[in-house]
Amino acid sequence: MGEIGGDSCDDIAAGKIPGWFVNVQKGWPGEALCFEVEKILFQAKSKYQHILVFQSASYGKVVMLDGSLQLTEKDEFAYQELITHLPLCSIPNPKKVLLIGGGDGGILAEASRHSSLERIDICEIDHLVIDVYKRFFPEIAIGYNDPRVRVHMGDGIEFLKVVPGGTYDAIILDAFTNMGPNGDVVEDESFLRTVANALRPGGVMCCPADSLWSTGFSLPNVVAKCRKVFKGSVNYAWSSVPSYSRYPYKLDEIIYKTWELCETR
Amino acid sequence: MGEIGGDSCDDIAAGKIPGWFVNVQKGWPGEALCFEVEKILFQAKSKYQHILVFQSASYGKVVMLDGSLQLTEKDEFAYQELITHLPLCSIPNPKKVLLIGGGDGGILAEASRHSSLERIDICEIDHLVIDVYKRFFPEIAIGYNDPRVRVHMGDGIEFLKVVPGGTYDAIILDAFTNMGPNGDVVEDESFLRTVANALRPGGVMCCPADSLWSTGFSLPNVVAKCRKVFKGSVNYAWSSVPSYSRYPYKLDEIIYKTWELCETR
Repeated sequence: MGEIGGDSCDDIAAGKIPGWFVNVQKGWPGEALCFEVEKILFQAKSKYQHILVFQSASYGKVVMLDGSLQLTEKDEFAYQELITHLPLCSIPNPKKVLLIGGGDGGILAEASRHSSLERIDICEIDHLVIDVYKRFFPEIAIGYNDPRVRVHMGDGIEFLKVVPGGTYDAIILDAFTNMGPNGDVVEDESFLRTVANALRPGGVMCCPADSLWSTGFSLPNVVAKCRKVFKGSVNYAWSSVPSYSRYPYKLDEIIYKTWELCETR
Repeated sequence: MGEIGGDSCDDIAAGKIPGWFVNVQKGWPGEALCFEVEKILFQAKSKYQHILVFQSASYGKVVMLDGSLQLTEKDEFAYQELITHLPLCSIPNPKKVLLIGGGDGGILAEASRHSSLERIDICEIDHLVIDVYKRFFPEIAIGYNDPRVRVHMGDGIEFLKVVPGGTYDAIILDAFTNMGPNGDVVEDESFLRTVANALRPGGVMCCPADSLWSTGFSLPNVVAKCRKVFKGSVNYAWSSVPSYSRYPYKLDEIIYKTWELCETR
């Protein structure tokens, strides 16, 4: 059992315990989730972010982007499967899907299981992300092997702006640091309109949303905004990804990954 | 962000960081969930167990029994509501319910919201648990105020043995250290038969089960055993209780509280 001592420990509060990845995040004080690190496998700084890959004692290989947990081998499937199959199974026979971000390739791999798809576009900004996943996580990056996949390197927001209206049956957003409570791109109506414009009528957008356990649970606001822009139905679903528990990898994904599904009509 | 250092830290591996409750549990090495402790409010040893109440920085007041997290003010409702309303809403107009354990009173409070109930029996072994909850958590222990509640002090297994057959519409088991993978009372067929005998035909039993994220997920075995004993339907449901994440408070409740519902027929 844990020991309860006197003064609070500066080390854990500061997230500094040698040999462990300790997270005490601003906005979530007084709790920490810690992973034991066995070996650092790779680290580098790309033009966009710092990438770190380590072998953990209990979650397989782990990837951190700018100090935030991106993915663990143990539970990445729970995220990839839900964010992919929710939108693609919610409409009949999707033919064209766009993924913004998701450079690891896991969502591509899940998308490739949909035989109706003719085109799987991905727009990823950071080539180092793709390279790192191809090198250290070939079973996840296998998604790139599907011949229907086209890779577009660049900024997702800019990419969406020039997509001809009505191009996609489904758009999956897996790219932005903050899709949650603190005001960000997904709460930006003009961005949402760009997404809606790129979808065909009846097309569907899926992105992470706020957690049920988040103190400042902001979903009602986001849903209201989505309803305004997308006209069709807006739904909320949730699942669990243990390594994201309490881990503000994205502000919206603390404790449980949650999703919004927005349909244009 | 967390710092990744060289050697692994003995302190965190041993669960000893002053001012924090740190858990690295046998069977779940390489990860830890930590709560900052603001103030110890109470601790004592009863005939049965060590009870500790502390004020945490982020989860309100927390209760530990023999070093295992029992309940936090922040999220206890998620556990109490599901384990109560799942069984009581699964059959029409339950009249008599038996709770084994659950001395905090929270399940009693939820049960008392069912107007069809005429009798709410609880069998709790440790009077100190009841006293501590009445003193430090009056809003949870309020369940004891319902005049339909009868408190039986004693061992739940012995109590069940002398219950006349067919007495209860529903039995909620919230008492045993281990209802999960490692062989225990709920996997003991003769115990399950005692429970089934105390239920009327068509009555329902609800108890915690194994977690979807547990490495040695044992649910199929337990379900098979329940199907054999209970004859009727056996269902599995799950929800989330953040403070139980990764916390082997009970072996069956790691990451997510999960439930089995067994019906006799």
